[in-house]
Amino acid sequence: MGLSVSFLGGGSFGTALSVMLAKKGVQVNLWDRKSTIVEDINVKRENIKYLHKVLIPKGVKASTDGEKVIKSSDILVLAVPSQAVREVCGNFSQFIDKDQIIVNIAKGIETKTGERLSQVIEEELPENKVVVLSGPSHAEEVALDIPTTVVVSSKDMEACRKIQNLFMTNKFRVYTNEDTVGVEIGGAVKNIIALAAGISDGIGYGDNSKAALMTRGIAEIVRIGERLGGRRETFSGLSGIGDLIVTCTSMHSRNRKAGILIGQGKSVKEAVKQVNMVVEGISACQAFHELKSKLNVEMPITEALYEILFLGKDPRYTVYELMTRAKKSEVY
Amino acid sequence: MGLSVSFLGGGSFGTALSVMLAKKGVQVNLWDRKSTIVEDINVKRENIKYLHKVLIPKGVKASTDGEKVIKSSDILVLAVPSQAVREVCGNFSQFIDKDQIIVNIAKGIETKTGERLSQVIEEELPENKVVVLSGPSHAEEVALDIPTTVVVSSKDMEACRKIQNLFMTNKFRVYTNEDTVGVEIGGAVKNIIALAAGISDGIGYGDNSKAALMTRGIAEIVRIGERLGGRRETFSGLSGIGDLIVTCTSMHSRNRKAGILIGQGKSVKEAVKQVNMVVEGISACQAFHELKSKLNVEMPITEALYEILFLGKDPRYTVYELMTRAKKSEVY
Repeated sequence: MGLSVSFLGGGSFGTALSVMLAKKGVQVNLWDRKSTIVEDINVKRENIKYLHKVLIPKGVKASTDGEKVIKSSDILVLAVPSQAVREVCGNFSQFIDKDQIIVNIAKGIETKTGERLSQVIEEELPENKVVVLSGPSHAEEVALDIPTTVVVSSKDMEACRKIQNLFMTNKFRVYTNEDTVGVEIGGAVKNIIALAAGISDGIGYGDNSKAALMTRGIAEIVRIGERLGGRRETFSGLSGIGDLIVTCTSMHSRNRKAGILIGQGKSVKEAVKQVNMVVEGISACQAFHELKSKLNVEMPITEALYEILFLGKDPRYTVYELMTRAKKSEVY
Repeated sequence: MGLSVSFLGGGSFGTALSVMLAKKGVQVNLWDRKSTIVEDINVKRENIKYLHKVLIPKGVKASTDGEKVIKSSDILVLAVPSQAVREVCGNFSQFIDKDQIIVNIAKGIETKTGERLSQVIEEELPENKVVVLSGPSHAEEVALDIPTTVVVSSKDMEACRKIQNLFMTNKFRVYTNEDTVGVEIGGAVKNIIALAAGISDGIGYGDNSKAALMTRGIAEIVRIGERLGGRRETFSGLSGIGDLIVTCTSMHSRNRKAGILIGQGKSVKEAVKQVNMVVEGISACQAFHELKSKLNVEMPITEALYEILFLGKDPRYTVYELMTRAKKSEVY
């Protein structure tokens, strides 16, 4: 391979991909601002806070020195929460070379601008090629070599194929998709639906109820996604329906977990505290609540979730309302 | 309401719908050929074999006398396994009045003809109006008043709306859809995908893997469904994606359960015996394996499942092969 890769951010997915690449023989450097995480990785060979009980190979070297980590690699993987992407790019831009390909693995939308994350990165690092990676890929399973499929997308298909080859293993299948808008919007909105699906579970509704909610959720993703320029086929694929399914049904999903707690009566603040990781669906809900009003797109689940998260409405009442709308013919 | 409804078949879903209608005040008569089931319902007020621990209201009267049951009602609900539909219609046709609306709730395709079940019914009872009911609706949850949504479809929209009104409650939402072909094909093929998804779970693959399989499963449903004359929107709806999701992820799904057992190394025969109910995905796999060859439609999951079920291939090898096909670009 010969490539060296640096990760900015030692969260669960970043760590899992680091482990996977290191096992493949790639030299991986990982920056995190928290010295406890860096130390746990380097000394205990485990990311205790974010990826419990997974052995991290020696090929992964962690550091709090961003400059050193960035300068050592051909490819930079951005593995920070969506709302931190701009700040991290801005802070480190002076050390980033224009030939380094930037790979973003966060899923979300910048709340203050409503921009997709690749747009944010392009504004901060206008000379770099940007690739996004998305799809149904819980870190806990990727780290254990459980068969996983993802999608990479970019304006630059050569960079895209380079990243495809870098990450591809016989357990981690990487497909390319030219529709970057669709890939990014699918990945962002599914977290909203997963929070709502978790709330439905938390209230005590069943699998029938959640399947109905998810079906409407897919329609909601398609509506806003097409309006923003994404392609319908993308939403039927891994980064659309595929990721929605895994996020709404797996116990690994932190968005679903937060939703379950809220459905059980916990406050949003308590739920986030208990999940102890960033719950991307909350900022996504805020961002899309604004976007949908501006663009005049119907997003009833996003609207209902917004009322629960930000206006203090009772989830029981809101979800019931959502389930029993007067609509009589099945139109999508 | 004033309507009286007869069910032919005391399986889990038929019993659950009987319970629901009886609670609504509808007079329900239920025929089953097994006297043990009839007795359990009438005496113990419980369908011990198929719907354990659900109290059956007195408004449901069971009998082994088909003629009596059929003649007492305006609406006949066919609640028998897909491969028994023709026989039951044929055997009872002499007692069925042309004004009785026939509602079919089985999901499948007749293996020996490749016909949809509404076609089978129309052949046997050419003067009757036929309505199909489908969607994500596990009996165990319907019987407990857990919010559920389904779709009804018919060539005759007036009959369709009559059935919609009959079944609608504030916990059981019934939508109409004019695309009967799409509704029936979605309901039949999803059982194939659920068997395959169960096998993936049984082997020990994860949520990422199953989401990938389900995503391809949806593409497979759309391909064969459109070829047979169904509409793409229907497959994105409750009787398509919605039902697929619930069947592939719920522990209530008998198709998934059978798949799990096969994935764990049990023979097909042992798995079916242990599930102890009809596993519709097996006959659906046989029917669509023939249809896909005749129509030249690509159905890789159906093909792989066929090899496991009927040709004795090792599930481990087959599913792995399915996961690691050489495809590099995400095209649907």
